[in-house]
Amino acid sequence: MNIKLTVSYDGTNYCGWQVQPNGTSVQSVIEDAIFSVTGEMVSLTGSGRTDAGVHAEGQVANFITKKDNIPPENFAFAINAFLPEDVKILSSQAVDETFNARKSAKRKTYCYTFYKSKIPQPLLERYAFRIDENFNLKNAQEVASVFVGEHDFKCFNASGSGAKTTVRTIYSINVTEKDNQIKIYVTGNGFLYNMVRIIAGTLLKAGEEKLSTSQAQEILASGSRELCGKTCPAKALCLLKVEY
Amino acid sequence: MNIKLTVSYDGTNYCGWQVQPNGTSVQSVIEDAIFSVTGEMVSLTGSGRTDAGVHAEGQVANFITKKDNIPPENFAFAINAFLPEDVKILSSQAVDETFNARKSAKRKTYCYTFYKSKIPQPLLERYAFRIDENFNLKNAQEVASVFVGEHDFKCFNASGSGAKTTVRTIYSINVTEKDNQIKIYVTGNGFLYNMVRIIAGTLLKAGEEKLSTSQAQEILASGSRELCGKTCPAKALCLLKVEY
Repeated sequence: MNIKLTVSYDGTNYCGWQVQPNGTSVQSVIEDAIFSVTGEMVSLTGSGRTDAGVHAEGQVANFITKKDNIPPENFAFAINAFLPEDVKILSSQAVDETFNARKSAKRKTYCYTFYKSKIPQPLLERYAFRIDENFNLKNAQEVASVFVGEHDFKCFNASGSGAKTTVRTIYSINVTEKDNQIKIYVTGNGFLYNMVRIIAGTLLKAGEEKLSTSQAQEILASGSRELCGKTCPAKALCLLKVEY
Repeated sequence: MNIKLTVSYDGTNYCGWQVQPNGTSVQSVIEDAIFSVTGEMVSLTGSGRTDAGVHAEGQVANFITKKDNIPPENFAFAINAFLPEDVKILSSQAVDETFNARKSAKRKTYCYTFYKSKIPQPLLERYAFRIDENFNLKNAQEVASVFVGEHDFKCFNASGSGAKTTVRTIYSINVTEKDNQIKIYVTGNGFLYNMVRIIAGTLLKAGEEKLSTSQAQEILASGSRELCGKTCPAKALCLLKVEY
């Protein structure tokens, strides 16, 4: 039986989704919990890696189990009993044998959150990145629109990434402001290593009026990482959902 | 010079506002930071205690300093340099010698947050308390209205409280629902030990349709703690503001 899981986690205390030599990964704590439920050492396939410190509201993963006697929707509750507070399975269901959380993924949506304040706010710091109070929302929105579509996103490709091609499609980037918080929603068919955090840094530069739409077009055409903004911190990034 | 501070903190890792024999208090880390700035061992007066684990967006405190050469508004930045990430001074100002953060306080507003979900949500758990999905908002609002006004709130007085009188005035209780989160805003001239957390537990009982407005009136008249709801967890309570 092929089981699809929807997973939420607070990534603060993890080395990321994927099993790593050092640190505890979200994948490994879920695999351990599945072992506690089924006695099986499964290999859990995630829709993709999330970096150390990145959060998820709706990560998707799947695994194969021989425990056909367990109703599929009960896996969520059973696995949760063995998970820490910062990782929980929101739902579980049986899916077709061919379903693969990584390969079958069609669209992913991430959200990056800034908050505007001169002084760090202890109650916002965990899930948002503090920026200056002067943020030109309209300019950030206009620059964001440059990146929508199918493009070679070499400029957003962090060094160390082993991606075969840097062509991806971004379906939408929405930049919103409410209660002094700026949220950047990015939906695409896939993302390069650190890509959303570099997009956030580049839109921050646009919000600070240090980057125009024509400069953004040049960055995209040149493929130069140096011309983009910095890679923004992981803590303010959240994988919202994966669509199939 | 009498300095008034507005303070925000994530109370998760503290034993509460007030200095205690065991554990680190918010008051003590701020007093230590003031010592680092001024070399003075001041006694910081808070508007009131907050319990272990309770958060604050706008706690108010004051202290007397002889450092008249420091511009009052600069104390915030100077003290913040010596504070951990989970405690920050949002603003500082010079106030009249007679100002006392506790005695001069006229109104305090707290917020208690529930979220409705069958499964714990890692990204909400830090600042909210999970409840059942069936919550009768209207009933909770009606029961809340019973407690508005000047009353003897003996029923909401946790044992161990040394309050001289249990008469307090609640100016308003607003119960709102948005995105599956219930927020209870309570404004009053002062609160008994655990009072807001017992109000939250009582309104939770109302939301679960286990308490009617007439029963709430009986509770208030009888002064019986046993008839109220349970004391809800500290982590979902936040001191929003103190008015003078």
